Amino acid sequence: MSLHRKLRLAMIGGGRNAFIGSIHRIAIQMDGLCEIVAGSLSSKPENALASGRDLFLPEDRIYTDFETMIIRESSLSPDIRPDIISIVTPNHLHFKPAMLALRNGFHVAIDKPITFSLSEAIQLREALIQSGKQLLLTHTYTGYPMIKQARQIIKSGTLGKIRKVFVEYPQGWLSRNLESTNNKQAEWRTDPGKSGKAGAMGDIGTHAFNLAEYVTGLNVTMICADIHTIVEGRRLDDDGALLLRFDNGASGTLMATQVATGEENNLRIRVYGDAGGLHWQQADCNTLNLMWPDRPAENLRCGSSYLHPSVLHNTRTPSGHPEGYLEAFANLYRNFFLTVDALDNGKIPEEQWLDFPSITEGVRGMQFIDRVIDAGKTSEKWISF
Amino acid sequence: MSLHRKLRLAMIGGGRNAFIGSIHRIAIQMDGLCEIVAGSLSSKPENALASGRDLFLPEDRIYTDFETMIIRESSLSPDIRPDIISIVTPNHLHFKPAMLALRNGFHVAIDKPITFSLSEAIQLREALIQSGKQLLLTHTYTGYPMIKQARQIIKSGTLGKIRKVFVEYPQGWLSRNLESTNNKQAEWRTDPGKSGKAGAMGDIGTHAFNLAEYVTGLNVTMICADIHTIVEGRRLDDDGALLLRFDNGASGTLMATQVATGEENNLRIRVYGDAGGLHWQQADCNTLNLMWPDRPAENLRCGSSYLHPSVLHNTRTPSGHPEGYLEAFANLYRNFFLTVDALDNGKIPEEQWLDFPSITEGVRGMQFIDRVIDAGKTSEKWISF
Amino acid sequence: MSLHRKLRLAMIGGGRNAFIGSIHRIAIQMDGLCEIVAGSLSSKPENALASGRDLFLPEDRIYTDFETMIIRESSLSPDIRPDIISIVTPNHLHFKPAMLALRNGFHVAIDKPITFSLSEAIQLREALIQSGKQLLLTHTYTGYPMIKQARQIIKSGTLGKIRKVFVEYPQGWLSRNLESTNNKQAEWRTDPGKSGKAGAMGDIGTHAFNLAEYVTGLNVTMICADIHTIVEGRRLDDDGALLLRFDNGASGTLMATQVATGEENNLRIRVYGDAGGLHWQQADCNTLNLMWPDRPAENLRCGSSYLHPSVLHNTRTPSGHPEGYLEAFANLYRNFFLTVDALDNGKIPEEQWLDFPSITEGVRGMQFIDRVIDAGKTSEKWISF
Amino acid sequence: MSLHRKLRLAMIGGGRNAFIGSIHRIAIQMDGLCEIVAGSLSSKPENALASGRDLFLPEDRIYTDFETMIIRESSLSPDIRPDIISIVTPNHLHFKPAMLALRNGFHVAIDKPITFSLSEAIQLREALIQSGKQLLLTHTYTGYPMIKQARQIIKSGTLGKIRKVFVEYPQGWLSRNLESTNNKQAEWRTDPGKSGKAGAMGDIGTHAFNLAEYVTGLNVTMICADIHTIVEGRRLDDDGALLLRFDNGASGTLMATQVATGEENNLRIRVYGDAGGLHWQQADCNTLNLMWPDRPAENLRCGSSYLHPSVLHNTRTPSGHPEGYLEAFANLYRNFFLTVDALDNGKIPEEQWLDFPSITEGVRGMQFIDRVIDAGKTSEKWISF
Repeated sequence: MSLHRKLRLAMIGGGRNAFIGSIHRIAIQMDGLCEIVAGSLSSKPENALASGRDLFLPEDRIYTDFETMIIRESSLSPDIRPDIISIVTPNHLHFKPAMLALRNGFHVAIDKPITFSLSEAIQLREALIQSGKQLLLTHTYTGYPMIKQARQIIKSGTLGKIRKVFVEYPQGWLSRNLESTNNKQAEWRTDPGKSGKAGAMGDIGTHAFNLAEYVTGLNVTMICADIHTIVEGRRLDDDGALLLRFDNGASGTLMATQVATGEENNLRIRVYGDAGGLHWQQADCNTLNLMWPDRPAENLRCGSSYLHPSVLHNTRTPSGHPEGYLEAFANLYRNFFLTVDALDNGKIPEEQWLDFPSITEGVRGMQFIDRVIDAGKTSEKWISF
Repeated sequence: MSLHRKLRLAMIGGGRNAFIGSIHRIAIQMDGLCEIVAGSLSSKPENALASGRDLFLPEDRIYTDFETMIIRESSLSPDIRPDIISIVTPNHLHFKPAMLALRNGFHVAIDKPITFSLSEAIQLREALIQSGKQLLLTHTYTGYPMIKQARQIIKSGTLGKIRKVFVEYPQGWLSRNLESTNNKQAEWRTDPGKSGKAGAMGDIGTHAFNLAEYVTGLNVTMICADIHTIVEGRRLDDDGALLLRFDNGASGTLMATQVATGEENNLRIRVYGDAGGLHWQQADCNTLNLMWPDRPAENLRCGSSYLHPSVLHNTRTPSGHPEGYLEAFANLYRNFFLTVDALDNGKIPEEQWLDFPSITEGVRGMQFIDRVIDAGKTSEKWISF
Repeated sequence: MSLHRKLRLAMIGGGRNAFIGSIHRIAIQMDGLCEIVAGSLSSKPENALASGRDLFLPEDRIYTDFETMIIRESSLSPDIRPDIISIVTPNHLHFKPAMLALRNGFHVAIDKPITFSLSEAIQLREALIQSGKQLLLTHTYTGYPMIKQARQIIKSGTLGKIRKVFVEYPQGWLSRNLESTNNKQAEWRTDPGKSGKAGAMGDIGTHAFNLAEYVTGLNVTMICADIHTIVEGRRLDDDGALLLRFDNGASGTLMATQVATGEENNLRIRVYGDAGGLHWQQADCNTLNLMWPDRPAENLRCGSSYLHPSVLHNTRTPSGHPEGYLEAFANLYRNFFLTVDALDNGKIPEEQWLDFPSITEGVRGMQFIDRVIDAGKTSEKWISF
Repeated sequence: MSLHRKLRLAMIGGGRNAFIGSIHRIAIQMDGLCEIVAGSLSSKPENALASGRDLFLPEDRIYTDFETMIIRESSLSPDIRPDIISIVTPNHLHFKPAMLALRNGFHVAIDKPITFSLSEAIQLREALIQSGKQLLLTHTYTGYPMIKQARQIIKSGTLGKIRKVFVEYPQGWLSRNLESTNNKQAEWRTDPGKSGKAGAMGDIGTHAFNLAEYVTGLNVTMICADIHTIVEGRRLDDDGALLLRFDNGASGTLMATQVATGEENNLRIRVYGDAGGLHWQQADCNTLNLMWPDRPAENLRCGSSYLHPSVLHNTRTPSGHPEGYLEAFANLYRNFFLTVDALDNGKIPEEQWLDFPSITEGVRGMQFIDRVIDAGKTSEKWISF
């Protein structure tokens, strides 16, 4: 898994005290395939500088606004110019830098959801196609090896025709009005001006939705939604449950809530076909349970030699050495890097390298946000997706 | 926990090869509080006889029809006459024997759902009230000690105001068309003439519904339902998912399916209030998990001295000695026996003895069946309950 | 599984406030195969009477001493005379009633360890052989269906040659000096005059030892022991760990402690052969984990149709309906009842009915107690067994 | 957690197809605190070159022998000269490069066990002290946050006086004679000329031993050992069990085996004091279970705000985002980097930065190897440590 050369990346957002920025950096650096060479890590000059120094960036590559950075970095000589711009700002600050980066010849990585609105996502898709560049959308959970194994198993038909899909994402951290307590994460995520049309549905509902479609290879076609803002004073939804219909006739449910007091980040998916079922949950992310009608359930374990080769490509340790969230995240970046490196060097990427979420998942996520909030408000039972 | 004398019971249904009949008998006999003294265990004379002999019943108390049994047994002298008639036949054979038993002065135990139709349930309620007798409805799962602890915790307010309730009951045994393979259990449970208006919703949906209301102390007020018959050729629903609204403003979901291939009997409930959450599942029935926003989750364990006294009343072993389904079932009968014994001897039953499902839960269960099937068919989103 | 007639049993010990007596009674009654007809449940007349009335015994069959009971009951007419004497007293009161019962023509059930001393056990073996009667020793844990499945799997050679056996039984209830707080259970179990040569090693070490030999079908040949009395003022051992050698060359460890603060009753066994391994623990008693070198681990589940027929003979519910400690206990009695009934009626018992612990296990348990305490005291490393 | 500048590291060993080398590199790079700038990654020139290119090393900093590398790199100008030499070769190739590195002014990181023999370890200690440099020994498991929390809890006295310590490390990968199948890992680890005096005891027994002493803060003073070479043809031990005595009077067991067929890497530790107990196992590395005599067990979870500040210093994600083996490994390096950076810049390291295994643990591990193999051979029961 070597590249032609070490890639270079510039980051927007993710200064001191940000959450997801440091996660991105660990994921970017872990495999030694990419170096962070520049950053506009904060719009506050002091924080931008301190944050850049934390990363040992040279002073002249620490910026306080992304426009300046993108323009200036794009003009640097090819041996130091970044290959990739990574955007880890709140949702309302995704679209502009992404468009500017593409226009200036950079590949782009963006935290999810891809944009503030569906229309932005559609515009971005257009721009991406025209740019010929690559885009990574960090839907972390599809980076888990055992999720990839689940996808392979369903794809291979081992579970038979898929009938039922249950996906759920309970969190508890917003069970109180944290946004009024000076909690930065809570503030922007519950702010319609920064988060977009949806709160919980955008923040974690999109993850659950993406996971369901990724694992099953199916598309949701209809939803029936019950969406709530449970905590008083909150300005966006913090809870919801959906009935789902899929394009092959399967049905299921999606639950995503941030007010399940005491829950951490308990993403879980169960899929049942007419020949077998599977179960995965993030809290035990290195295990995939397979269930059969007439023989013992099996525990497939990350890193085991019996896994699909494309799954083992997404692991770093032998079985019994737990991998986790950061490695899942790093899998997204690594596949993205491998693809970018191949294409930029005139090679055809391996199929397994192309296994990272991108604009298609991004637009679909924005459609989800759009439709689910509407569905929550209507008295109609089923809403086409 | 002694009675004035050992109670006596006559059973209808539950001959050789029946499932639930033998469960009832173990539950009845376990604590040595009640003796099975008569039975019309099968409508087939040969089976009735063989089954009665299995139980060491005297030949003259083995019957082939329940009418004869009830009439004759009611005429026996008080020192051998049964106190209780237990009805463990398929749903369409609940109402008549129950009515006859009440009319002849017996207390009645019935397997769930209480009757074939809602109207029968309402008639039975009337008859019960007029009889002054007691009725036990064997909603097994509310017999689990840790479920009772969950109820106590919620009642005490420890979890704060309840906001979310998730209950699910996935089974996989009907993921194939078993009813066409000479499987007796599958046959009657998928037969509209024997099971009633609903299949999975009546068989296990009612359990999930009952559990949610029992644990939370809340009532469901509105439902939105997606009900399926997934296996080809089946004549009743085998799968369904509901959105729920409760009378205190809480919301949630209910899932019950018999086509979750590979699942056993995986009943599970989660409840979240504004101060904490709880989780219980039958596969680990002796543990109740409590979750808190700011301190470690706790595992409450069956038999532990820190449990509510009324919960310990419903255990038989110290912590670490697993109790299970049969003990939960026996808890229902034991409380019923204690109540019957007290009332029949002019005593006031202790509050904890009255903790068994009865006609109220029975009528409510039939309402659930009635409403959920209608809700599954309508294009309206929310159906009042 | 019918008997020729309902068996009759008289109990010694197990009055109000005793622990194991009520467990025995549930196990005896659960399947409706045996009736408790007489009892000398306590040596205190008042308690004996109250305890007998709790069981609805007729006054003339409630005794205050076992000699009187055995002699008188042995003289009753065959249609009411007990078949079995069940002895559930502390260890020092096992031998005499057992000898007397055998001499008077009763089958005998005894709680473990079988006697106070090894020499008593050897005498009892002699008496049993001469009596032609049956003896049940209630080593509960071998009654668990999944333990029986483990035994079958190893017997069948599926795990290959057995190399390693790890058995452990941590409890925490004696981590404080309970015996000085008026706790009856703690008092006699830590009293050398009542418990015998060993404390924890006799109470739970014997269980672990029995389990290891039962599951593997191997015999321990050598031990190396580290035995402790950890709680100040205690008069018997409350903790110990052993290195084990087996007759096929396998090795392993045995740990049994009553001072593992916070542990309940966490019996666990792991066995590894050259082809696979297995794991079982009481806290999840309905699951048996099988491990393989090159394919996913499997979870065998109690009640599943793929289990060995002799294992299913020892279950009462379909998979997914948890069975527990009381059912394991009842399995011992049920097999004992089936055997007694067959032999007393001139039939040959089925092999699976003979699967209950008896005098061989009893003597071996007493040898364990004898050797392990010696081994704990010597400076020699290995002690032959 | 910023450094004065990004550190630089040269690696010895860890070429293509090596196992632990790539683990070290991920751990080194993850946090962006250190850059790998040179390497003698293999003694085979072709592999050394290819492996160096994989890491994007400049050709002139790719070496085929460590002597050349150390000498040449030590002469480079301070702005490119490595700070640290990391040694990830088999055990017999630890001592020489470590001595040479220290002599040439480098800090040193070494995979465990620290050397081939105890005498080498003692010499290395001497050299280290004289060098004034820092040494990191990568005993991975003490890098787990929840292990650090366990240590803090015991240190704080919350569990009371420690009485029992059970540590075990079952693996199954060597249950067959892999070393004869061209498996490089198996080859050197079972080769007395490369691995040293011990096989399993050196490879994983030292980890278990280190973990027990780290978590409890106690020292083992006496051992009794049963050591086996179970797989035919193997030249070193592959299995062992020990009885342990600690300096505070506590006792316990240590089990380490590589022939527990089907086990992955199932490191586990349990500690019981007179006031409570704890349990941790690598397979669920983000949870620490605390057990109490009279209240519910608690599940402490990685990343939770209620953990000790020094534990949170060793995490990278909020609770519910699983961290794993690589993050534990990276914690060792990160603390080492922080310490090296502080000392090299004349600062006093924070206490929590000094929390990484070093020469003391290294010597102690070699003593363990030395004593345990002797103890396995002697007929004496207890061997002083």
